[in-house]
Amino acid sequence: MPPVVCIVGRPQSGKTTLIDRLIVELKERGYKVATIKHTTHDFETDTAGKDSWKHAQAGSECIVLSSAHKLTLTRTVERDLSPTELSRLITDDFDIVLAEGYKKSDELKIEVHRQEMGEPVCPPDELMAIVTDQEFQFETPRFSHDQSHTLSDLIEEKVLKPRKNVEIALFVDGQSIPLLPFIKNLYQKIIFDMVAVLKGVRNPKRIDVSIKRR
Amino acid sequence: MPPVVCIVGRPQSGKTTLIDRLIVELKERGYKVATIKHTTHDFETDTAGKDSWKHAQAGSECIVLSSAHKLTLTRTVERDLSPTELSRLITDDFDIVLAEGYKKSDELKIEVHRQEMGEPVCPPDELMAIVTDQEFQFETPRFSHDQSHTLSDLIEEKVLKPRKNVEIALFVDGQSIPLLPFIKNLYQKIIFDMVAVLKGVRNPKRIDVSIKRR
Repeated sequence: MPPVVCIVGRPQSGKTTLIDRLIVELKERGYKVATIKHTTHDFETDTAGKDSWKHAQAGSECIVLSSAHKLTLTRTVERDLSPTELSRLITDDFDIVLAEGYKKSDELKIEVHRQEMGEPVCPPDELMAIVTDQEFQFETPRFSHDQSHTLSDLIEEKVLKPRKNVEIALFVDGQSIPLLPFIKNLYQKIIFDMVAVLKGVRNPKRIDVSIKRR
Repeated sequence: MPPVVCIVGRPQSGKTTLIDRLIVELKERGYKVATIKHTTHDFETDTAGKDSWKHAQAGSECIVLSSAHKLTLTRTVERDLSPTELSRLITDDFDIVLAEGYKKSDELKIEVHRQEMGEPVCPPDELMAIVTDQEFQFETPRFSHDQSHTLSDLIEEKVLKPRKNVEIALFVDGQSIPLLPFIKNLYQKIIFDMVAVLKGVRNPKRIDVSIKRR
């Protein structure tokens, strides 16, 4: 599950523009970037008459369309999913997820702000950085709107480089469970050892286990 | 990871129609159904000018669009993914995945066949069932094209009901690793015990662990 950084701010503050600049910067530095866009609008993703549309009409609640170059998954949900829940859908070959919105989430947040729009939407001490045209007293790192390069330096330093040599993510009943460092080490040691003895497994780099009981 | 049944057959044999009927049947019986459609064509999934399209233009290789009712994930891939790999993207609240195509996969397969089109595309002994208008000698269960109800009975009996009380799926470096029953039991016991002692965890039904080392 790649780490998530939420780009928050009022409507028209420049969130999409900033995300686009960060994508370009981070991609140039060799990182693989995914994005999450939250919307309150309904959106159409399929074309009437196509096979996948017929599946949806018949009652399929999750439709995957797959080719050699692209895949699309469309599914119904019963509520807005959090950026953490959404990032679970993004495979681990991605280095970072930039999410637009989600000002109430616990993920790392960068606010895009303009003086003319009033106060920031998030308390500054909740922010990893603020992109603004206003002078502020608080200690949150501050960038102007054209500083996507130096902001990318900060993201690289704080989010991308610290990704540990061993990462472990645990979900219980769909909820992410935080683990103390010694528990992480213990778990990864036990699970790697359990798997290493299996036939056909050699020097694994990545292990995913899912268990369900009814 | 829900179980996959591939619906195979020659073009125009009636695969999409059968899948649509199975979706309706299985949904009426209370099952939650997902579908996978393979395509060799490129397909467009986004509208020029929209924010998510801008992210793609900027270089985002995975774009998630999320609302309270629906979510769409679109990503670039470097090759055709197998139904097993694709079904990993489908969350475990789904009971079954019906995949159109994938005649060479190792998943359960049902062929849709018409006498006028020549031989079936799969050897009959590889098939869980065949839907056909032709008499055959082989032992594979045979259904006519209007028997989606009795075919659903077979799917329920062979695929849906046997889903065990405890299921465990293990992926090492992205490849599914088959486990002997006693190893499954051992793994689930160890992992449930490991997690049960954590703060904030109570009577878990589902555990997902991902570990990556570089």
